[in-house]
Amino acid sequence: MKIDVLTLFPEMFDGVFGASILGKAREKGIISLRAVNFRPYAGNRHNTVDDTPYGGGGGMVLKPDPIFAAVEDLLGGQAKEAEFLKPPRVILMCPQGETYTQKKAEELAREEHLIFICGHYEGYDERIREHLVTDELSIGDYVLTGGELPAMTVIDSVVRLLPGVLGNATSAVADSFSTGLLEHPHYTRPLDFRGWKVPNILLSGHHANIEEWRRRESLRRTLERRPDLLEHADLTIKEKEWLQSAHDQKASTEI
Amino acid sequence: MKIDVLTLFPEMFDGVFGASILGKAREKGIISLRAVNFRPYAGNRHNTVDDTPYGGGGGMVLKPDPIFAAVEDLLGGQAKEAEFLKPPRVILMCPQGETYTQKKAEELAREEHLIFICGHYEGYDERIREHLVTDELSIGDYVLTGGELPAMTVIDSVVRLLPGVLGNATSAVADSFSTGLLEHPHYTRPLDFRGWKVPNILLSGHHANIEEWRRRESLRRTLERRPDLLEHADLTIKEKEWLQSAHDQKASTEI
Repeated sequence: MKIDVLTLFPEMFDGVFGASILGKAREKGIISLRAVNFRPYAGNRHNTVDDTPYGGGGGMVLKPDPIFAAVEDLLGGQAKEAEFLKPPRVILMCPQGETYTQKKAEELAREEHLIFICGHYEGYDERIREHLVTDELSIGDYVLTGGELPAMTVIDSVVRLLPGVLGNATSAVADSFSTGLLEHPHYTRPLDFRGWKVPNILLSGHHANIEEWRRRESLRRTLERRPDLLEHADLTIKEKEWLQSAHDQKASTEI
Repeated sequence: MKIDVLTLFPEMFDGVFGASILGKAREKGIISLRAVNFRPYAGNRHNTVDDTPYGGGGGMVLKPDPIFAAVEDLLGGQAKEAEFLKPPRVILMCPQGETYTQKKAEELAREEHLIFICGHYEGYDERIREHLVTDELSIGDYVLTGGELPAMTVIDSVVRLLPGVLGNATSAVADSFSTGLLEHPHYTRPLDFRGWKVPNILLSGHHANIEEWRRRESLRRTLERRPDLLEHADLTIKEKEWLQSAHDQKASTEI
């Protein structure tokens, strides 16, 4: 997979693109990863990439021309590379975008070329959204300084899904959103840490009982923290009954 | 504000902590920012920070001792610094956490010391959650390789709220979540870009009309993309009526 990020702050990406999973995926040749400064594409004397908004008001707006020119330059190079057949997804990171979820990560992981556009403070000229961008994404309902951290976040979540990136040892963990439930509690050594002990059930050796306890704790945690996830979770009839009784019990203690 | 991040990959933070807003806030002395490797706190021969889970199963679990030791070392240093009076928030970044929002950013911006704990692939021993951590946060419903990008995201959103960090020129923009609505479209030069023109209303000079158009476009975009936000938005009676008619019209064209 080829991943290009258009940004005014390419140096922000150095630490993240070089480390851990992304660094290893690059070394293995599974992805190519570039942070490209779009300022040189401004094509004007001071390399100005933003300007004041029509209609007045505060803030600055990113001009369409440098961003179109940068994307077209990336695609011009691509046309010569026979291995890239699918047209790229051009992704704008912005608070107005679709809320990013694991489902979208799985969708993007099937692509061959992703181009991310990151603004910083500024708004985007609407023509960028209308005529260049294929996806507008928001990673959550909070205000950030720019699209750089959101782009890194999306890239991390997509790249870890690519075949060959995660080893078996790591792929089994962090699967909260694949089961549709929050994870059960984990415990490791020491058995007794400052008087706080590991639950006996985990020391019993009864695998079926342990699995049942874990599933139950997973349900309990999801009910307490993220009941919205239960709507789409794959549950047995017995589990649904248990959840109903846990819910009723909670409601009655609240009265 | 003092911000410490416990991580096994401190080098991931270099680019982000040095650039843009966070770099400037450090230079101005508004924040101190450190990424601390907790591996040396393991205190065992191979500096092992994780171990297999009790009860079996795949994956590794972060041991409680190194993380407790690292946090206590940070606090031991703090006890000698008279300026830090409030106890720190110890924040665990994990998919099981409370969904992070702008409201939480505003809450954290009132603190004096934030400590972030970032795991990587591994689960956390439950005793870390129960006896050390004050907040568990998730930045969204997608699976990431570790807590590092989520910690950077939370830090960016909190630091930009601190007095003196943003100049006036930048603070006015990107306020999507302060009005409760998505932003209206922006346009800047050129007036005609490849035949795509700026809407006439923005060139009219009628400020009241421009404001009304912007507000209407903001409502329209929110209705189309994030109707959930409208529940909590501060709307006039006229705006509510307009939204209702826009909604009805959409429903009737769908039939």
